[in-house]
Amino acid sequence: MDECDFRFNIVIVGLGLIGGSYAMALRQLRPVQINAIDMDKKVLHTAFEMGIIDKGCDNSGDILKEADLIIIALYPEETIRFVRNNIMNFKKGAVITDSCGVKIEVVEKINSFLPQEIDFVAGHPMAGKESKGFQQASKDIFKDANYIITPTKRNKKENIALIEKMAKAIGCKNVVYLTPEEHDKIISFTSHLPHVIAVSLMNSNITENDIGLFTGGSFKDVTRVAAINSTLWSELFTLNSKNLIDEIESFEKGIKEIKKAIELEDRETLTDILKSASIKRRKIL
Amino acid sequence: MDECDFRFNIVIVGLGLIGGSYAMALRQLRPVQINAIDMDKKVLHTAFEMGIIDKGCDNSGDILKEADLIIIALYPEETIRFVRNNIMNFKKGAVITDSCGVKIEVVEKINSFLPQEIDFVAGHPMAGKESKGFQQASKDIFKDANYIITPTKRNKKENIALIEKMAKAIGCKNVVYLTPEEHDKIISFTSHLPHVIAVSLMNSNITENDIGLFTGGSFKDVTRVAAINSTLWSELFTLNSKNLIDEIESFEKGIKEIKKAIELEDRETLTDILKSASIKRRKIL
Repeated sequence: MDECDFRFNIVIVGLGLIGGSYAMALRQLRPVQINAIDMDKKVLHTAFEMGIIDKGCDNSGDILKEADLIIIALYPEETIRFVRNNIMNFKKGAVITDSCGVKIEVVEKINSFLPQEIDFVAGHPMAGKESKGFQQASKDIFKDANYIITPTKRNKKENIALIEKMAKAIGCKNVVYLTPEEHDKIISFTSHLPHVIAVSLMNSNITENDIGLFTGGSFKDVTRVAAINSTLWSELFTLNSKNLIDEIESFEKGIKEIKKAIELEDRETLTDILKSASIKRRKIL
Repeated sequence: MDECDFRFNIVIVGLGLIGGSYAMALRQLRPVQINAIDMDKKVLHTAFEMGIIDKGCDNSGDILKEADLIIIALYPEETIRFVRNNIMNFKKGAVITDSCGVKIEVVEKINSFLPQEIDFVAGHPMAGKESKGFQQASKDIFKDANYIITPTKRNKKENIALIEKMAKAIGCKNVVYLTPEEHDKIISFTSHLPHVIAVSLMNSNITENDIGLFTGGSFKDVTRVAAINSTLWSELFTLNSKNLIDEIESFEKGIKEIKKAIELEDRETLTDILKSASIKRRKIL
């Protein structure tokens, strides 16, 4: 992207793994300014020293008033609270986006109190790491990632286009559009359920054995995301509980089915179950 | 390892992913000869052209008679059948090892008919890939892998030492000793269960959606091994069914517990469950 294309004054709210990564990736687009709001003054100082932000502030006062684009990289409930508490600080025409892994709750709540002249275009970069915090941030986490936008009727077309342009400019491969309802349903399967599974497998080890000596790649892969940010994911799971319960129950049925075939030592059925999974998996790169 | 240390005549039985990888890795130790037995003449020809075997044979006749070390890289039941059918072809003092992912069945059966002067030292290199076949073979699959040896009382110390030496020489990081019973119990948790889970998650997708557009790293990691060799893994699951059923049921209990906390939107319990998993996972590299 040509630098002239991104002449915005940007504020990033929350300089953790995701917010820090946004700052690093956006810096390369040479926007007018990238400023940041974070409670942690040390992180703000580090980010300033690294040259990825122009100004840092540990409270959201004047810094918001000049912002054209506000990227909130907080947990869902904090995101809602931040917008509510700063209603008076956004300038007319400002575009707000977020990075939350649940959408119905965030979009409905924020739109319920947001003035018409400020546009909230909700986004979900499907990027992350099992570790949290600014120290883990990297512009590369967006590379080839999926980015979901969940627009609503009140969003202006040019603002939706701006978020898509930004997502592609920071390296995302696919930008897809869903309603908040579709998002929460699909994500309960593609993201929340795998985390539930990884956690349950990891907790299933009740031995004192150093199991690291007896693992191959399969155990490590399936449990990788069990090294989880417990506060964030507890919030995501409960905010999407209905969809997630449905997906867990569908998964439980599958486990019962394969268990039965193993109990009966029914290799024919087992081979069919395994073949079906294998064909589906090979379709995903 | 000094090349003088490995002056053996080796026969590899089955030039698939594992057997082919053994040939490639062992070639670097410059043994006297590496010969191979495989049904597929094309694969034997390719391996010969690549210089990783000296002779290939599609039936197990004379080629076995000179072998000091026979490495069987077949499925468990084929491994047993191969040894049974070739009882007369092994020379006195020969060492046989295998690469099977279940041990009780293989060790008991083979030792029940193997003459005293031939030694079967069972081994399980915890290395692999989700794809099968010689085309996928690589000397690097053993790099930093775990290698489990399940010796029995009839094994000679020097023969056990030989398998350990070989495992380290081809790149394995940890060589650990277990009884066949311990092996099958631990592996049902660290290897068979993760495969059951990956397969069930993959099959749980009943939509026609192109879910690749909505996945992040978690879904891809948890389902990686769902691209499975269905014949081999059906055999492994059924040969280790009792242990595996126990582990599946313990995992099912964990899923029930987290599901309950999500249903109740009980964030405190959820955070505890997630924290416990996170701490355990961070102990495994």
